[in-house]
Amino acid sequence: MPAAPDFRAWLDVAVAEAERGRAEGGVPIGAALVGADGAVLGRGRNRRVQDGDPSVHGETAAFRDAGRQRTYRGTTMVTTLSPCWYCSGLVRQFGISRLVIGEARTFHGGHDWLAEHGVEVVVLDDERCVRLMSEFIEQRPELWFEDIGVDGAEDGEGTR
Amino acid sequence: MPAAPDFRAWLDVAVAEAERGRAEGGVPIGAALVGADGAVLGRGRNRRVQDGDPSVHGETAAFRDAGRQRTYRGTTMVTTLSPCWYCSGLVRQFGISRLVIGEARTFHGGHDWLAEHGVEVVVLDDERCVRLMSEFIEQRPELWFEDIGVDGAEDGEGTR
Repeated sequence: MPAAPDFRAWLDVAVAEAERGRAEGGVPIGAALVGADGAVLGRGRNRRVQDGDPSVHGETAAFRDAGRQRTYRGTTMVTTLSPCWYCSGLVRQFGISRLVIGEARTFHGGHDWLAEHGVEVVVLDDERCVRLMSEFIEQRPELWFEDIGVDGAEDGEGTR
Repeated sequence: MPAAPDFRAWLDVAVAEAERGRAEGGVPIGAALVGADGAVLGRGRNRRVQDGDPSVHGETAAFRDAGRQRTYRGTTMVTTLSPCWYCSGLVRQFGISRLVIGEARTFHGGHDWLAEHGVEVVVLDDERCVRLMSEFIEQRPELWFEDIGVDGAEDGEGTR
């Protein structure tokens, strides 16, 4: 019988990516796409600042890094933070089976919607992830709002 | 008074991208992000085949091409085909105000969901777009299913 998935070990991969992003002066969110057999297929971090590319969120970077796959059945997207709508849409569209989230305290994205649509959602509430985002949001609020499309002139409701 | 937006002219930009993608042997879907003033901020096409990159849909390519923006208020995403969940999530997350779709006959993505969440949705039902996709789906069904994450072993329900 295969061992139970070690979600914390998978999260470590995503956290390492997030910490690397922080060290680069970027948005500290990381992710990994893990295969049905537990192997890491792809990993990545938000690179809005590093590449000047707003399309690279942690989850889309990990998805890209995994390359073309015929199916995502049985795969798990592991991310340090609850995914925004863009990344939630990615998980739903490609039929990624499971979502493991480091934390959903500093940002509540689309994970309830994914659970409603059959994705297995696991929230680990990891203190390292909470600290990474809390410190970042405090230090660089304008960069954070830019990353999630929150316009300074509105309260952000509806874009979370 | 500013002239009314010329949606068909904007769609021409997206169609040109889709046709270029077809000529390259790729998935023939193109898009453009248009600013509030009617200027094209970014344009692009699906490049799954060309770059071996499953994260580059037409919409995400146009979004990336536009670079970092402080706000998407007043912008329009123009796409040859109704956007999948991944691209619909992009539109919602970043607060893109309007979505102009070439056609939604060959694929019905997340545009109703976007309309429910306040995005202005315009479906042009353009024959060129229908033909591009109809011919592609007939010729390369396996590539099309890969692009929208439809597993060969399932009927695809729920991933549309």
